[in-house]
Amino acid sequence: MKLAFIGLGNMGAPMARNLHDAGHDVHAWTRSAARRAALRAEGMRVEEHLAAAAEGAAIAISMLADDAAELAVSEGDAGLLRHLPRGAVRISMSTIGVAASHRLAELHAAHGQGYVAAPVFGRPAAAAARALWIAAAGADDALARARPILEALGRGLTLPGGPAETAHALKLGANALGAIITEGLGEVFAYGAKAGVAPAAYLELLDQSMLQAGFVGNYARMIVAGGTDSRGGFPLRLALKDVGLALDAAVGLRAPLPLAASVRDRMLRAVATGRGEHDLPGLAQLAFEDAGLGNG
Amino acid sequence: MKLAFIGLGNMGAPMARNLHDAGHDVHAWTRSAARRAALRAEGMRVEEHLAAAAEGAAIAISMLADDAAELAVSEGDAGLLRHLPRGAVRISMSTIGVAASHRLAELHAAHGQGYVAAPVFGRPAAAAARALWIAAAGADDALARARPILEALGRGLTLPGGPAETAHALKLGANALGAIITEGLGEVFAYGAKAGVAPAAYLELLDQSMLQAGFVGNYARMIVAGGTDSRGGFPLRLALKDVGLALDAAVGLRAPLPLAASVRDRMLRAVATGRGEHDLPGLAQLAFEDAGLGNG
Amino acid sequence: MKLAFIGLGNMGAPMARNLHDAGHDVHAWTRSAARRAALRAEGMRVEEHLAAAAEGAAIAISMLADDAAELAVSEGDAGLLRHLPRGAVRISMSTIGVAASHRLAELHAAHGQGYVAAPVFGRPAAAAARALWIAAAGADDALARARPILEALGRGLTLPGGPAETAHALKLGANALGAIITEGLGEVFAYGAKAGVAPAAYLELLDQSMLQAGFVGNYARMIVAGGTDSRGGFPLRLALKDVGLALDAAVGLRAPLPLAASVRDRMLRAVATGRGEHDLPGLAQLAFEDAGLGNG
Amino acid sequence: MKLAFIGLGNMGAPMARNLHDAGHDVHAWTRSAARRAALRAEGMRVEEHLAAAAEGAAIAISMLADDAAELAVSEGDAGLLRHLPRGAVRISMSTIGVAASHRLAELHAAHGQGYVAAPVFGRPAAAAARALWIAAAGADDALARARPILEALGRGLTLPGGPAETAHALKLGANALGAIITEGLGEVFAYGAKAGVAPAAYLELLDQSMLQAGFVGNYARMIVAGGTDSRGGFPLRLALKDVGLALDAAVGLRAPLPLAASVRDRMLRAVATGRGEHDLPGLAQLAFEDAGLGNG
Repeated sequence: MKLAFIGLGNMGAPMARNLHDAGHDVHAWTRSAARRAALRAEGMRVEEHLAAAAEGAAIAISMLADDAAELAVSEGDAGLLRHLPRGAVRISMSTIGVAASHRLAELHAAHGQGYVAAPVFGRPAAAAARALWIAAAGADDALARARPILEALGRGLTLPGGPAETAHALKLGANALGAIITEGLGEVFAYGAKAGVAPAAYLELLDQSMLQAGFVGNYARMIVAGGTDSRGGFPLRLALKDVGLALDAAVGLRAPLPLAASVRDRMLRAVATGRGEHDLPGLAQLAFEDAGLGNG
Repeated sequence: MKLAFIGLGNMGAPMARNLHDAGHDVHAWTRSAARRAALRAEGMRVEEHLAAAAEGAAIAISMLADDAAELAVSEGDAGLLRHLPRGAVRISMSTIGVAASHRLAELHAAHGQGYVAAPVFGRPAAAAARALWIAAAGADDALARARPILEALGRGLTLPGGPAETAHALKLGANALGAIITEGLGEVFAYGAKAGVAPAAYLELLDQSMLQAGFVGNYARMIVAGGTDSRGGFPLRLALKDVGLALDAAVGLRAPLPLAASVRDRMLRAVATGRGEHDLPGLAQLAFEDAGLGNG
Repeated sequence: MKLAFIGLGNMGAPMARNLHDAGHDVHAWTRSAARRAALRAEGMRVEEHLAAAAEGAAIAISMLADDAAELAVSEGDAGLLRHLPRGAVRISMSTIGVAASHRLAELHAAHGQGYVAAPVFGRPAAAAARALWIAAAGADDALARARPILEALGRGLTLPGGPAETAHALKLGANALGAIITEGLGEVFAYGAKAGVAPAAYLELLDQSMLQAGFVGNYARMIVAGGTDSRGGFPLRLALKDVGLALDAAVGLRAPLPLAASVRDRMLRAVATGRGEHDLPGLAQLAFEDAGLGNG
Repeated sequence: MKLAFIGLGNMGAPMARNLHDAGHDVHAWTRSAARRAALRAEGMRVEEHLAAAAEGAAIAISMLADDAAELAVSEGDAGLLRHLPRGAVRISMSTIGVAASHRLAELHAAHGQGYVAAPVFGRPAAAAARALWIAAAGADDALARARPILEALGRGLTLPGGPAETAHALKLGANALGAIITEGLGEVFAYGAKAGVAPAAYLELLDQSMLQAGFVGNYARMIVAGGTDSRGGFPLRLALKDVGLALDAAVGLRAPLPLAASVRDRMLRAVATGRGEHDLPGLAQLAFEDAGLGNG
């Protein structure tokens, strides 16, 4: 079974290599001639033209930088839509937008081809170690055919159901969460540094306390479980006080905490609307309400 | 050696009980007569008056709700400042403000008493299981005397150095980080729910991917290490694209992601000021600059 | 000279009517048959088909709801691109995106037609009263031909120069400013209401003080003039104090002021980076820096 | 009738001078010996000690930098509380916090003295020209006695009613609004500059359009009037589109608009919760709800 692999960057190259090493008949292609040569030198089969990789392939995987690159390899005379056989399955593993993913699904359907959205979680080292986690969605038959390939690329997969682009929506949300946490860490480390504590020392404390206890997962579990009962917990009324004290400290230190300031206003709203005794994870109710979902 | 324990709420009660069970001569007190009676019924020594707990104590621990409560048990005719012996050490384990903590240090110094700030990490269940982590700061001699007591209350302690209130500054910053992450989780779960994925299913995906990989600690370590090299990593230019796509998806879903929107503007600034190729954790540079610390 | 007018909604209808009343040979069209009939009943010439309005027109004006509507009347067999003569000038007066505006410019150029972006400032009542203000940009010759028509539609026009889409960028920025101010007013009125003062009473105070003094224009003029000198003014150090006190009051009242909280963090950054003695309008420096423009 | 005037800075000096020139028996004092000498050289009566200004005064006005300065001149052996006669009225015209203002009211009441909060709107030039606007609150009798003095200092006054600190709450809210607008202007000018339009040119456009039309007051009036009817107006659904297009343009220009991004999320929430057809000023409903006030 011929397998086309499009995109051989930091992520794509180790993924293609893993499929090749696992015995798949991988025909790779990437836009850069230098990269094509480099991968060929490693013993991989790399085609000079995208069309050559696509012709006759049962599965085509793309791992590219953005929406524009995904559409560029799909449309036009040289594109996947034209050169993949009817009945082939396209798997987009890139992190692309929901609208672009939906558009790819429509285009492949119009060409009698299947489409699976399967973005990955993990950095290049995880790709090389086949330690990626993959979220995959699409029509049942396409998904069934994509599955063994996806399983060869990572530790496992989550199948959220729904239309293909749902997998991309989840990936983008997770990346947004990662960005929020990165920004939060940066703000708090800068604040700690201004209080005289080096980031390494602050990290040691966080490692031993919140991180060791897996607090992100714990709070997430409390939100999932409903999260509004404060018995034995940490009522929003007190959490509001604490964030207020952190902001007071930040003003005193001249070290802004803008995300914390936003969260303080959410807590203030929670308390003003009668949720002061809810447990901290009950804060999530507001996000559900703001999305028009009523009480989370 | 007599030990006064002031405040017997959800956190204080199990902590006092642990000290009592470990063989310390604990004289406890709390404002609520009902709670005093309940703890007494368990076999603890609970005084009717704060002064009786304080008189002759070598160490006095307070575990209270807020700044006002800490100051209320300290000042006035019946307060700790007046009734603790000279040379005693006050340990404030409450989560209080930096200014209030500094004020307590000054007041105890003026009364010839030591002061240690020792806020705790952990919820009531962790307090009961002696699984708290403690950040402690204060003058060397006071800290040396407080240390065995603190070690009897938890898993271990971090000593950041600096004046006593530094420990409270770190605790407040960590709580702010926790609040940011809680809000971020709520927003992302609401967004996922609007995309048709139940929070429990989204959590399963996060558990298997980012949380399993310990990404909070990983990003924190990258920030500590400097974090501006993008080789093998995730350049801010691409992270900006991803958060932008998440926001586009959020607009499409009618599910606001306000923290992610704030972070997008930080990334935009990072890219506009020449940091597009820095790795995602390099975002922290902005927070350091905004605090007047130059390049983090 | 035949003039096509596309889009007869709340804004378009009075604009087309004004051109008609001024003696122009207006051939109007709108998607809704009911609206076509209504305008015809008023004596206007309304075509059944877009193409009939476009054929032979020297100028075509569009006033539509969004990017999609602008593109829909432009492209395709029935669209303006196909039916306007070579040498005609399209004027887009809708509030559309910069990318869509740029795209229209390219498409018309490819069809040998001119393109002017000319978004309007004013609500329907101002459109009816020819009291609109218009920002117009495009190639010199197209602009010269559009100008008399634009002058017949409003009080006057601003010509910012640059490519056509610049006019849309400015319109969108102005609308964003309007949205910021609307949100700010809402937050402050809610805060005032929680302090016991009805919005009408608060407005009376603002009317007599800040609004009467034209403070928006005043601050804008100070930013334009450089804005960093605090002599005789209001140093950022004190402005930071005041916003901090407003936030303290808001916390006390349980009435969140999220925009003010964001601004407080900007001021904190300004003070932490050595700008505490700059006058309040000096805050704008940060926005210029964040855009990569150095000191504003 | 003797009148004490405390604080002779950029604002206080011209105010004291105006009262003196109007024939009042002003006994001034300020902390700085150099300023005392300078004002004396102008022919004003400036006392060497605060107590001398206060003794026997019927009214004492303070115009100082912050809460700490207001409390410093009030308390202690040399303070106003001790040296003003019973029955005198203290007028605090400084911009101070609500809690500090409430505290001053209590302290003066405990000393048998009246207290009026009367913060001013206007910069030093307005103070000199007696063009200040003043918000004044306090007990009826104190207010009645303060009123002629306040009228001699400005163009007029607003009496919001309620306890004295209400006047300070309103002043702080107005300053927060001013800060929001200043930040919004800075962001939009930086965005315009990145689009190639100098701030002066953008200001000219704003001056002719939104500012000329008094849009701040207009939106404020629509909020006061209820603001949720979109007929003839600008529905939130379209406003959301426009702010989204502005943010897209800002991303393209690499010119962050953080306040606009926050407002976009508010609009998204408004639309997700069924308010898409409300007029733009209907956005204020959310702020009222978040403050626990129900539908504004």
